[in-house]
Amino acid sequence: MAQGMVGPRVVALAGGVGGAKLAEGLQAQIGDGLSVVVNTGDDCNRHGLLVMPDHDTVLYNLAGLEQAGLGWGIEGDTFAVMDQLGAYGEETWFRLGDRDLALHVVRTSRLRAGQRLTQVCLEAQHALGIKARILPMTDAPVATEVRTDEGWLEFQDYFVRRRQAPDVLELRFTGVDVAAPTPEVVEAFELADAIVICPSNPLVSVGPILAVPAMREAISAARRRGVPVAAVSPIIGGKALKGPADRMLTSLGHEASAAGVARLYADLCDVFVLDEEDRGQADAVAALGMRPFVTDSIMTDDASRARLAAELLDTLGI
Amino acid sequence: MAQGMVGPRVVALAGGVGGAKLAEGLQAQIGDGLSVVVNTGDDCNRHGLLVMPDHDTVLYNLAGLEQAGLGWGIEGDTFAVMDQLGAYGEETWFRLGDRDLALHVVRTSRLRAGQRLTQVCLEAQHALGIKARILPMTDAPVATEVRTDEGWLEFQDYFVRRRQAPDVLELRFTGVDVAAPTPEVVEAFELADAIVICPSNPLVSVGPILAVPAMREAISAARRRGVPVAAVSPIIGGKALKGPADRMLTSLGHEASAAGVARLYADLCDVFVLDEEDRGQADAVAALGMRPFVTDSIMTDDASRARLAAELLDTLGI
Repeated sequence: MAQGMVGPRVVALAGGVGGAKLAEGLQAQIGDGLSVVVNTGDDCNRHGLLVMPDHDTVLYNLAGLEQAGLGWGIEGDTFAVMDQLGAYGEETWFRLGDRDLALHVVRTSRLRAGQRLTQVCLEAQHALGIKARILPMTDAPVATEVRTDEGWLEFQDYFVRRRQAPDVLELRFTGVDVAAPTPEVVEAFELADAIVICPSNPLVSVGPILAVPAMREAISAARRRGVPVAAVSPIIGGKALKGPADRMLTSLGHEASAAGVARLYADLCDVFVLDEEDRGQADAVAALGMRPFVTDSIMTDDASRARLAAELLDTLGI
Repeated sequence: MAQGMVGPRVVALAGGVGGAKLAEGLQAQIGDGLSVVVNTGDDCNRHGLLVMPDHDTVLYNLAGLEQAGLGWGIEGDTFAVMDQLGAYGEETWFRLGDRDLALHVVRTSRLRAGQRLTQVCLEAQHALGIKARILPMTDAPVATEVRTDEGWLEFQDYFVRRRQAPDVLELRFTGVDVAAPTPEVVEAFELADAIVICPSNPLVSVGPILAVPAMREAISAARRRGVPVAAVSPIIGGKALKGPADRMLTSLGHEASAAGVARLYADLCDVFVLDEEDRGQADAVAALGMRPFVTDSIMTDDASRARLAAELLDTLGI
């Protein structure tokens, strides 16, 4: 890249933990060249406050504030508000730390004052000093719901309260039909030099993003301009590193394998990243029309996140 | 009182600290016979949450949770949310503790879900196990505003942010004209054996309560039934024990003295309680048509609160 030029611009599609880790690696490589489009289907109302689990997991990771080893919240946070909410008879199974809760208070307040969701999120990101931009996939309300043998459940009811125990028999993203990508998301795709689908649950993290009308077309339009698109498998050795993606793939009729995920992205991607452990599935990926890229894809620390991001950008020619 | 009968029922009108102290004394004497009608003119919106300073000061006092020596908040509370709100660029001059904030979150949430203010407050009181009932003077929004040489200010802007420094030139209670006492307040007056105006600021604490249409008439109707009404002076030796009542009386053309306060209540009360220090003003009170009752009215601890309440009930024949 010539001196004085704008750095490369990458759009990453992400859900929670796995997406946040790769986003952190990408931010380490390209700083403010990164735009992360996050799933908002998991967003929920708790105690009258809007909570955005995927946005905030990415936010706290990019800000270096994330709770080590957990997919939510701020390291060292306290729970004084939560305990007192319990004293007033509120449900407490969805744990919100005090510093975390401040974000939900601010965001809810500013939304009620008339700001757009994206504006409110960008302000919070700026306040925490992150370099990248995290863009809600849409400003419209979308609610991921899962059908189990108990019937339809709100996503967090399934995910947190029931600890993903029930088999998921069907998914829906209520509201997505009338949602639209934001101007910020549209612009990010228009300016992108590469697009990365992070190792997030393809069904309930990346799925809602791709279900927003015009979102797939925005990716396809970028590809027609020669912008490479890569996806990173969230399944390694048939297992999700975190979360229920493997069981959900199976119960919804897909294959719980890297190749099974590759099949879901075959019409969108040029490159599919597999872990060394799944090297044997590289041919299957190639047969789907994508270039397989095999590497150590487990991100255990900042260095491995940055390394995977660097390798990924390199293989995309960025 | 004969065994098996319902205990005496007292309605107390109260603002913040002084009112809360006498209310605590009354609760110690008559328990669930006490209904406290609280000023809601100081209520405000902070960070999208409804904050009710007077209700909550009374609540925390009656629950034994109040911050010693301060007119707000919960003893030992932490400020993690507040600090983080500051990081997001929110104003932090109105300090809300974490446990305190939980109440504002719950109340705002339940109000938005369609509950009445009084219901929401009664639920919170029940959750904290208090015996008395604290009744907002109205469920309708009323906003106390003060005119200073800077123009009209919201009450908390004057009271907290500017630390009551500016002279108050005029008062208004926006919204009070279309407010109404709640069914709970109406019933409390109908069942009252005595009514007590607590040693709160007569202009901005008791004033808004009495400005609610039908409130004065509810008190007058009780008097016509023979229910005694007493007021306790918040001014001792020409000074307010806490807050700007003395300066506000002067700047608004009243006398900053027990007798000056007595004059404001002359058409409402049968008994007016003066501190020993103001014994010399007893005749002036009598000349206004009220029976002066002189006692040590400074409430420094639980015992003195209970003693003043006991003396007060005794002099009212309760």
